[in-house]
Amino acid sequence: MSATMEESNPPVSKKAAAKAAKKAEKTLNKQMAAAALDVEEEDPLAANYGDVSFQSLQSKEISGRKWVAVRLLDTGMKGQTVLVRGRVHTERGTGKMAFLVVREAGCTVQCVLSVAENIVSKGMVKYVNKISKESIVDVEGIVSVPEKPIEGTSQKVEIQARKVYCISKAAAQLPLNLEDAARSERDFEKAEKDPQQGVQFVRVGQDTRLNNRVLDLRTPANQAIFRIQSQVSTLFRQFLLAEDFVELHTPKLLAGASEGGSSVFKLDYKGQPACLAQSPQLHKQMGICADFGRVFEIGPVFRAENSFTHRHLCEFTGLDFEMEIKEHYFEVLDVLEAVFVAIFDGINEKCVKHLEAINAQYPFEPLQYLRKTLRLTFAEGVKLLEEAAIIVDPMADFNTETERELGRIVKEKFKTDFYVLHRYPAAIRPFYTMPCWDDPRYSNSFDVFIRGEEIISGAQRVHDPELLTKRAIECGIEVNTLSTYIDSFRWGAVPHGGAGVGLERVVMLFCALNNIRKTSLFPRDPQRLAP
Amino acid sequence: MSATMEESNPPVSKKAAAKAAKKAEKTLNKQMAAAALDVEEEDPLAANYGDVSFQSLQSKEISGRKWVAVRLLDTGMKGQTVLVRGRVHTERGTGKMAFLVVREAGCTVQCVLSVAENIVSKGMVKYVNKISKESIVDVEGIVSVPEKPIEGTSQKVEIQARKVYCISKAAAQLPLNLEDAARSERDFEKAEKDPQQGVQFVRVGQDTRLNNRVLDLRTPANQAIFRIQSQVSTLFRQFLLAEDFVELHTPKLLAGASEGGSSVFKLDYKGQPACLAQSPQLHKQMGICADFGRVFEIGPVFRAENSFTHRHLCEFTGLDFEMEIKEHYFEVLDVLEAVFVAIFDGINEKCVKHLEAINAQYPFEPLQYLRKTLRLTFAEGVKLLEEAAIIVDPMADFNTETERELGRIVKEKFKTDFYVLHRYPAAIRPFYTMPCWDDPRYSNSFDVFIRGEEIISGAQRVHDPELLTKRAIECGIEVNTLSTYIDSFRWGAVPHGGAGVGLERVVMLFCALNNIRKTSLFPRDPQRLAP
Repeated sequence: MSATMEESNPPVSKKAAAKAAKKAEKTLNKQMAAAALDVEEEDPLAANYGDVSFQSLQSKEISGRKWVAVRLLDTGMKGQTVLVRGRVHTERGTGKMAFLVVREAGCTVQCVLSVAENIVSKGMVKYVNKISKESIVDVEGIVSVPEKPIEGTSQKVEIQARKVYCISKAAAQLPLNLEDAARSERDFEKAEKDPQQGVQFVRVGQDTRLNNRVLDLRTPANQAIFRIQSQVSTLFRQFLLAEDFVELHTPKLLAGASEGGSSVFKLDYKGQPACLAQSPQLHKQMGICADFGRVFEIGPVFRAENSFTHRHLCEFTGLDFEMEIKEHYFEVLDVLEAVFVAIFDGINEKCVKHLEAINAQYPFEPLQYLRKTLRLTFAEGVKLLEEAAIIVDPMADFNTETERELGRIVKEKFKTDFYVLHRYPAAIRPFYTMPCWDDPRYSNSFDVFIRGEEIISGAQRVHDPELLTKRAIECGIEVNTLSTYIDSFRWGAVPHGGAGVGLERVVMLFCALNNIRKTSLFPRDPQRLAP
Repeated sequence: MSATMEESNPPVSKKAAAKAAKKAEKTLNKQMAAAALDVEEEDPLAANYGDVSFQSLQSKEISGRKWVAVRLLDTGMKGQTVLVRGRVHTERGTGKMAFLVVREAGCTVQCVLSVAENIVSKGMVKYVNKISKESIVDVEGIVSVPEKPIEGTSQKVEIQARKVYCISKAAAQLPLNLEDAARSERDFEKAEKDPQQGVQFVRVGQDTRLNNRVLDLRTPANQAIFRIQSQVSTLFRQFLLAEDFVELHTPKLLAGASEGGSSVFKLDYKGQPACLAQSPQLHKQMGICADFGRVFEIGPVFRAENSFTHRHLCEFTGLDFEMEIKEHYFEVLDVLEAVFVAIFDGINEKCVKHLEAINAQYPFEPLQYLRKTLRLTFAEGVKLLEEAAIIVDPMADFNTETERELGRIVKEKFKTDFYVLHRYPAAIRPFYTMPCWDDPRYSNSFDVFIRGEEIISGAQRVHDPELLTKRAIECGIEVNTLSTYIDSFRWGAVPHGGAGVGLERVVMLFCALNNIRKTSLFPRDPQRLAP
């Protein structure tokens, strides 16, 4: 075993390998020969375009050339010669002209080729017009500012191309068209309203997108979604690190059945029964018992449940923290609320372009939130629902529809999409939740909501081993599978609490997206394990 | 399923639960009654000490009191009344005096109680002397600066205690003694050299430590190790985020057998065969094909190999990155070397106290590294070995001993513990490694070493789907299990490369620790799946 990412290769039947290799080599040679034909030999400007040889992409030399990122191209660069690398997003042309839109990381620039002696040859225009969409190209040219602003590209300048080289060719037939995948509902409505234009857009279904996720992820909205997701983790961590939290990495492979229940992935671990952690709950608490004071973790969480909703995944990213409490679980809420206000502020401030890109495809109302987060007790939530003639069991959990309803009521009354509900009935919380001091039917627990959907659960935890054992038994949990966890509290334990957040849900609900699969890079649900 | 960390409880047989609950409640009541007896009712100062009622730890009230962290106590606070919460580290006393060393997060302060009318009662001293080690206490008192510096505590001040309350009692018998667990080899040697003193220290073996990891983690050295580990991740991320990298979360549940080989954990995923990712290799490359340009991930990595060495684990934390290459894999090395110099500088600068704590138990030479990292080719490495009369196969991988030997030679010759070896023979690298342009027997790959041990592997990757297929077949890999990965390269792919780092190895080797289990919070090896 190697502790790094490189694996050595397993042994092979030599004969079979040699045969298969020969076949693959043939295909490769054919492809390369075909590529060579693309260059027109007679053209005196032939050196200015063509397919780059594979050899020169194998780290052959360091030329010292500098590439400019497409997103950085602006009018201040007018007249400069620049070199960009990106994908062929679209192209249209005649015999004498070619318009090539090059895309890099969701940003686009138009490159113009116009036949002119000693500058751009016919052969070059012809070559460019033949490059398949999504191929990778290097384009060198002069930045110009068009009189009439260009529509449909993110950058407001053009490149008057002088050199175009193809680095990597995309297959001519793609399983989905990027322009189709990037269209908004508004585009479809417009096309439907105006059938005289004869435009008929293709809708790319969710399965097609997810089956070909690498292509789907290239749309401007998807580029933005995962850049915002990266920002959310960063803001979460930065805030907690500044507040003296320590980042831990707890094991995902656990003995026995972890927190119990049926939603656990089981596996064989060297002959021992094992499972995948459904959360870092037990080990982050053990981190508190191990004197780390305040801890957090960002890592995968595994749930084997058979849920086919818009907001459930079998694997997602948990943002977890746990901290010593001096007196009250409100200390946890103080941190949590401050973290989330910092995250929301941070996204709004740092991700303006990304939010625009998402809005262009999936328009949404900006999240409304208060500087001081609203805290309601569960009982107050029940009352608000009652006032709206929605009668619920005051000791049972809300269902999704009731949560949404309460979200609407709270939004109207308190002008916020983000609020905390606390002091939940004990019966609907996990065994390790601390009961309220004044009424054990309630607990020192909370959920947090964005736009009427739960994104965070948390609580003060039971730090007394006897009470913990009692609660586990009452909840029908096999106490012996929890022995190392419960033992941790026998050696002195500080009062503590914490919370767990679903990263994908935060991004989904901040941007009011309708499906969690949109905010998971390669989603896993009961039917999807690939790509 | 819930996307947050709280699990609902599974159903129970009501009768069995009620019975078991009754039993647990009895134990609990007994314990509480015993606790109540500890307070001496007649003492007029009785309110200044005793066990805190459990109810008041259930978020009963917010008093507004402020606790000071032990590590912040210093001579500038002389005369101030402070309140600290920590563990009873040691205590010694007579009828009239008590010396209580309180420990918080590995830092210690001595609290002094001396019987004085209306200030400290005999009952209080008696109470304090009875509190078991590792119990959690609140101590309030006045900061004083002793004339003679105190030995054996991290803080140079004392607290003249006025109030002592016990928050949580540790069991009287602990599976290991913290003082024993924190002793250095030097302490043992001293005790052995001086047998007249009659001191016989108990050695705490590795299994005892790991079986009771929550206790073991409380030693100053362990507190420091995991705070440094947290710092390493932070420095890694900060550097890459500043260089335009995007943080991704790739799936750990994969269809089929991932990268192949026997070292894979298999499981059943809703009736489909699945495995745990041995690295984020395939998906981070797919992230590049999805236009993220530069990506990184910090997450768990699973290896089912049967290795029982000092440097192998079945689950560890991978620091991975992958990036577009414009021309040469040296671009990857440029980033990698800069990241690591930033990490080393950062630890040395920000973790001075932690390094001292580790050194006190496990003395080590500071890591020697160059501002500009040394890069040697594999062939140059072979030559250096040959010059030292160590003859190796120039096309085979080095074994651990040869790597160490080369580390010693390099250290002597180039004055560095940290260096890069690149251009490895292709046959000993994974199938996705890019062959060298001038000689396909070699590859655009590298390993990085600290103190003669490998911590990082990386390379330029093959971005051409035909060559990738050919290489996979030559290496005997089932190509059809890799179809979604290989397809990603059919839709246009930029040249790219990256590296994977084992977080636990970085910390282990920076601090010259002798076993990777020391730098894994809850280690997993072929025989250990708990706690």
